[in-house]
Amino acid sequence: MKRKATSRRRGEELEQAILDAAWAEFSEVGFARLTMEGVAKRAGTSKPVLYRRWPSRVELLIACVANRIPRAELIPDTGSLRGDLVALLTLARERMRLIGQGAMLGILAEVSADPVARNALFAGLIDELVTLLYAGVYQRAIARGELDEAHLTPRLRRLPTDLVRNEFLVFSDASDTAIDEMVDEVILPALRARGART
Amino acid sequence: MKRKATSRRRGEELEQAILDAAWAEFSEVGFARLTMEGVAKRAGTSKPVLYRRWPSRVELLIACVANRIPRAELIPDTGSLRGDLVALLTLARERMRLIGQGAMLGILAEVSADPVARNALFAGLIDELVTLLYAGVYQRAIARGELDEAHLTPRLRRLPTDLVRNEFLVFSDASDTAIDEMVDEVILPALRARGART
Repeated sequence: MKRKATSRRRGEELEQAILDAAWAEFSEVGFARLTMEGVAKRAGTSKPVLYRRWPSRVELLIACVANRIPRAELIPDTGSLRGDLVALLTLARERMRLIGQGAMLGILAEVSADPVARNALFAGLIDELVTLLYAGVYQRAIARGELDEAHLTPRLRRLPTDLVRNEFLVFSDASDTAIDEMVDEVILPALRARGART
Repeated sequence: MKRKATSRRRGEELEQAILDAAWAEFSEVGFARLTMEGVAKRAGTSKPVLYRRWPSRVELLIACVANRIPRAELIPDTGSLRGDLVALLTLARERMRLIGQGAMLGILAEVSADPVARNALFAGLIDELVTLLYAGVYQRAIARGELDEAHLTPRLRRLPTDLVRNEFLVFSDASDTAIDEMVDEVILPALRARGART
């Protein structure tokens, strides 16, 4: 259904239309050739409307990806820290597959010199997984008596997503075997050494 | 001293001149705008001469970076696995600073769809650090009785460089504090859990 009166769209409806257009444009032309103009044209709006919401194409893409990937309220309780960690890393891998290695590298390149855009990246994509890991997986393990909160350093809170991201950036994917290795050879031993009782 | 008879240069001398030119060109224009033509012009040679040696600009850049970074025969023996790991990660960080986050991201993007270029990346840059870690740091720890070779899985051989690379790709750098955290909170516990006796 083609809209005739795009100027009537307001607020959330307009924002969703722009994010959908950004996703379609990104899927078609890739990150390198994604432009604010291309997205504006596809959404039936103007560049200033986009710039009022997102200061740059990288922030638009981060918002569009965050809007598109399935939001997980909680990692399902598998009954053990190990099972929950595998579930979290598998979810992270699925999200990275959806975003794609090219876009991930492009986003990192774009935010490298721009602290505002980097904050948008953390707020929009990275922090959500780290929070899911902490509030879901780690808190449940603490409740089960598998883990001691006192030993959960910031580095250990980030470790699982750091490992899967590196794997994805270098190899374009993270296999099930790679995820098992991360959990059994790195993450669980690091947690155990600091008080985990699994 | 300007060369007049560039056509007389042969073999290693010519190759070094091209690698020097590639480094100068890369330093000036960055990876995104690095071209075989620009390097050939700067080296006083022709594009076919470059393509005979390197099938693409990414393989030329990998060769040029590998040629430029200080080759380490061995990580100095600090007397302990912990000290050696910190030295290895510090060396890795220094190399990554020299290459720069932008070039690292650009190289990863370029090799993602090209297995030949990816092999060149591993052979030219990644494997050397992993080998230094294994042949230097880990073997010395085994000789000291700090580590059991039987527990050194492929994942644990890669772990230190994986962690520092991820840090660099996300934050444009790896601080001394970050390196200490990686060693004390992740790498040593993971090694200990599998037989390290430090």
